[in-house]
Amino acid sequence: MKKMLFLGGTGFLGKNLLEAFVQAGEYECVVFDKQGFPAEAPAIFQEVPVCLGNFEDRDRLREVLQQHPAEVLVHLVSTTIPSSSNLDIALDIESNLVATVQLLDLARQYNIRKVVFLSSGGTVYGIPSSNPVSETAPTNPICSHGIVKLAAEKYLQLYRHLYGLEYLICRVSNPYGEYHHSPVQGLINVVLRRIVKGEEVVIWGDGSTIRDYIYVKDVADAIMKLVQNDAFNQVVNVGSGQGLSINQVLTLVQKELGSFPVRYERGRAFDVPALVLDCAKLRSLM
Amino acid sequence: MKKMLFLGGTGFLGKNLLEAFVQAGEYECVVFDKQGFPAEAPAIFQEVPVCLGNFEDRDRLREVLQQHPAEVLVHLVSTTIPSSSNLDIALDIESNLVATVQLLDLARQYNIRKVVFLSSGGTVYGIPSSNPVSETAPTNPICSHGIVKLAAEKYLQLYRHLYGLEYLICRVSNPYGEYHHSPVQGLINVVLRRIVKGEEVVIWGDGSTIRDYIYVKDVADAIMKLVQNDAFNQVVNVGSGQGLSINQVLTLVQKELGSFPVRYERGRAFDVPALVLDCAKLRSLM
Repeated sequence: MKKMLFLGGTGFLGKNLLEAFVQAGEYECVVFDKQGFPAEAPAIFQEVPVCLGNFEDRDRLREVLQQHPAEVLVHLVSTTIPSSSNLDIALDIESNLVATVQLLDLARQYNIRKVVFLSSGGTVYGIPSSNPVSETAPTNPICSHGIVKLAAEKYLQLYRHLYGLEYLICRVSNPYGEYHHSPVQGLINVVLRRIVKGEEVVIWGDGSTIRDYIYVKDVADAIMKLVQNDAFNQVVNVGSGQGLSINQVLTLVQKELGSFPVRYERGRAFDVPALVLDCAKLRSLM
Repeated sequence: MKKMLFLGGTGFLGKNLLEAFVQAGEYECVVFDKQGFPAEAPAIFQEVPVCLGNFEDRDRLREVLQQHPAEVLVHLVSTTIPSSSNLDIALDIESNLVATVQLLDLARQYNIRKVVFLSSGGTVYGIPSSNPVSETAPTNPICSHGIVKLAAEKYLQLYRHLYGLEYLICRVSNPYGEYHHSPVQGLINVVLRRIVKGEEVVIWGDGSTIRDYIYVKDVADAIMKLVQNDAFNQVVNVGSGQGLSINQVLTLVQKELGSFPVRYERGRAFDVPALVLDCAKLRSLM
């Protein structure tokens, strides 16, 4: 059994990845996160050992890596989301970028060979000159979240160059699906939650913003196949490769659930007008 | 008179830029740095007001920006050099990147309109697939210094996008010339210093490493012309566009000064084998 340590494993992507890897039966999975799974979480999560700790706490992380010398680290921690990241950039840099470098240093010290890094396909490219966007497109993020993800990618590549630590950088687009509990992030999840609660749906801009939505279990499958195929030392877009506008998503939801109230607010400066990932590389690696 | 504030203005590039801008007679120049000019510095520097302070000290920087509401900031501060930056990456990120973001925040608060940023043409590109390297080439640094410079560039571009703060990013290659006092950085300076002192010249690698050397007064002229031509919101390579190997430089020095002892040491992982900047954009903007 390959030992895998999921940092930030109790979150949305974390739970879905963990479920896929545990179900595959070939991996010994351990979680590091600041909280454990709630009592009502599905049984599959109750069997996974959780090491509690703060990602920025280097000493605690050191203990966990000593105790669980995993072959692969899966780094899912993010203390910011795109919409909040511009409000306190110093915090974004320190809690994500500095902490990620600390993790890489520890990984190197404890002879961990591989790191899977969940990057942000929706923010690292900034405003693309055309869509779909391949991995070699220019990267000029318009939010700090994207800059920090991009800089973390560069440090992963640096540690590969200097110390041989292998990396798999997954630039995930906009995942939706099970275990998505954020009240503010993820259009499909937020819209459904508001409809269920009988609340008004609030859209930033006129609804023409185009995104690449992907079912989170497809993300988990893709990442598992990349790990199984040993597709390390690659930057890979992980998306559907298909663009939908916010209004198209709302129409699809309306078809299923009937009409609901929508309010359009002014667009936000950190929202890219259209972003669809070119996923040819992912297909070839799977 | 346009008011210009030079952060890190007492250093190598700082002194040369300052000299050029003061001599031009159109600028009111002020320096912010952790130390002043030594008593033996040329007279031109003795007339420039120096505000003492640490670049990371936000409160001190705020006072200085209040006292000197410059039209243009010239950001020359760097607490690391390529060869040291991989040794303490957290320090590199905090003292350079976080401090730069603090500066941009203050610039925005005090209505400063323009920032000139001295980036690193020698490190932001990493190992280029071919030379010369244009500004649109991939950027995969192999030292933390380069990653931090690159991330700072991205934050400058973000502040332009979000708040309209104008930037001029100068990716300077390997400058040499007056006021270069570092005992460890800058091949030509270090070689000459060692010869003068009668010390052995130490070269990392076999001397085949190719760099783009540029006379520092040409850098100062170029940057002054870019500022005068209002060439903001650009990323510009500032180099000679010509490559010389270390051994070619040593041969040129030998022709002038006669032979001197050279010792070759093992190459370093963070040294790019060959890097020459494509300076067509600089020429067109000048």
